[in-house]
Amino acid sequence: MKFGVLGTGMVGNAIAGKLAQLGHEVKMGGREANNEKGQEWAKGAGTKASYGTFAEAAQFGDIIVNATAGVASLAALNAAGAHNLKGKVLIDIANPLDFSNGMPPTLSVVNTDSLGEQIQHAFPETRVVKTLNTLSCTLMVDPNAVANGDHNIFISGNDGQAKETVLGMLQQFGWKKQNVIDLGDISTARGTEQLLPVWIRLWGALGTPSFNFKIAR
Amino acid sequence: MKFGVLGTGMVGNAIAGKLAQLGHEVKMGGREANNEKGQEWAKGAGTKASYGTFAEAAQFGDIIVNATAGVASLAALNAAGAHNLKGKVLIDIANPLDFSNGMPPTLSVVNTDSLGEQIQHAFPETRVVKTLNTLSCTLMVDPNAVANGDHNIFISGNDGQAKETVLGMLQQFGWKKQNVIDLGDISTARGTEQLLPVWIRLWGALGTPSFNFKIAR
Repeated sequence: MKFGVLGTGMVGNAIAGKLAQLGHEVKMGGREANNEKGQEWAKGAGTKASYGTFAEAAQFGDIIVNATAGVASLAALNAAGAHNLKGKVLIDIANPLDFSNGMPPTLSVVNTDSLGEQIQHAFPETRVVKTLNTLSCTLMVDPNAVANGDHNIFISGNDGQAKETVLGMLQQFGWKKQNVIDLGDISTARGTEQLLPVWIRLWGALGTPSFNFKIAR
Repeated sequence: MKFGVLGTGMVGNAIAGKLAQLGHEVKMGGREANNEKGQEWAKGAGTKASYGTFAEAAQFGDIIVNATAGVASLAALNAAGAHNLKGKVLIDIANPLDFSNGMPPTLSVVNTDSLGEQIQHAFPETRVVKTLNTLSCTLMVDPNAVANGDHNIFISGNDGQAKETVLGMLQQFGWKKQNVIDLGDISTARGTEQLLPVWIRLWGALGTPSFNFKIAR
């Protein structure tokens, strides 16, 4: 499977790295063609790994991952180009965290809207699936690192087949199918994006980002 | 210990009922002196249970519980009277859920503020502790009803001693000390109040409110 991973930060590195390690062809995408972090990543990640602009990565991938900073995601996706995203599954991991007023960040989209919905609205011919935005990037790709993997992630999206595709990727990452909770359509991304404020405070209270939500039943 | 429980709905009933069952003196408070639900509750809850107005319940209690609807909480507390709340611990269980635009509800306070903070700000001489607002009222007072009680609640407040007092009540409810996570000051209530949107969607996805968040580490 060919993946285009948009974003050269920690989340982009974690996801692109894991996908390459799993044997997929991965092009990481950034704003600039000569992004050093992206080029370095590609050098170290094997022969199937490459780096390019947002547009090149989006054109390359059958599945696209949005791992950009939430407040910059719409700009990044516009740079990627609607024609390069058309018909494709777009996995949205970004959170609309606004650090412009210091710590803790606030949410730039909240309550009656979500970044996931804004992306789906801006790219109606792309099948947006929100997931993995509620935990640290280390745990995204290595769920067994805490509590033997006995915790949950959430999935939101309008297209059932796209959600099945994403579930397949998550299972390759080590997520057990029964630990992935389908919340419903993309508007349920409001719920998972609004988990971030308590996630950030838990990080402070626990002194580590190495935790995740489990829904005890 | 004498408790004043403000609110005659499901949450008020669950909390006041549990407190009475534990042997505490409890006065449930409502808007009207002749509230039928409140009077009925008092009749059925033993000789130490009574009903009165918000002001009467607040005056009666050494510890006050805000179990009113979040959008009506400030009005209820104003009716209770700052002089009746002065110096006391106020346990705020309310969530600022706004149902005026249908389901799912939105939050009437969100992101850069919280109901817990608004209450603390309006009643600076009262020691506000936010807790128990992230799960169903059945589980608030019976944590062992799911997953052998192996899940978490959160506590937010500016006054360490007040939080200790509340922890004592929670332990009487059946909460293990290690499952109560102190998030920090009252501004951390933003995090727990913003858990509600995903809580509501989880209720839909799971088909039951009988679940709770556990922080897997």
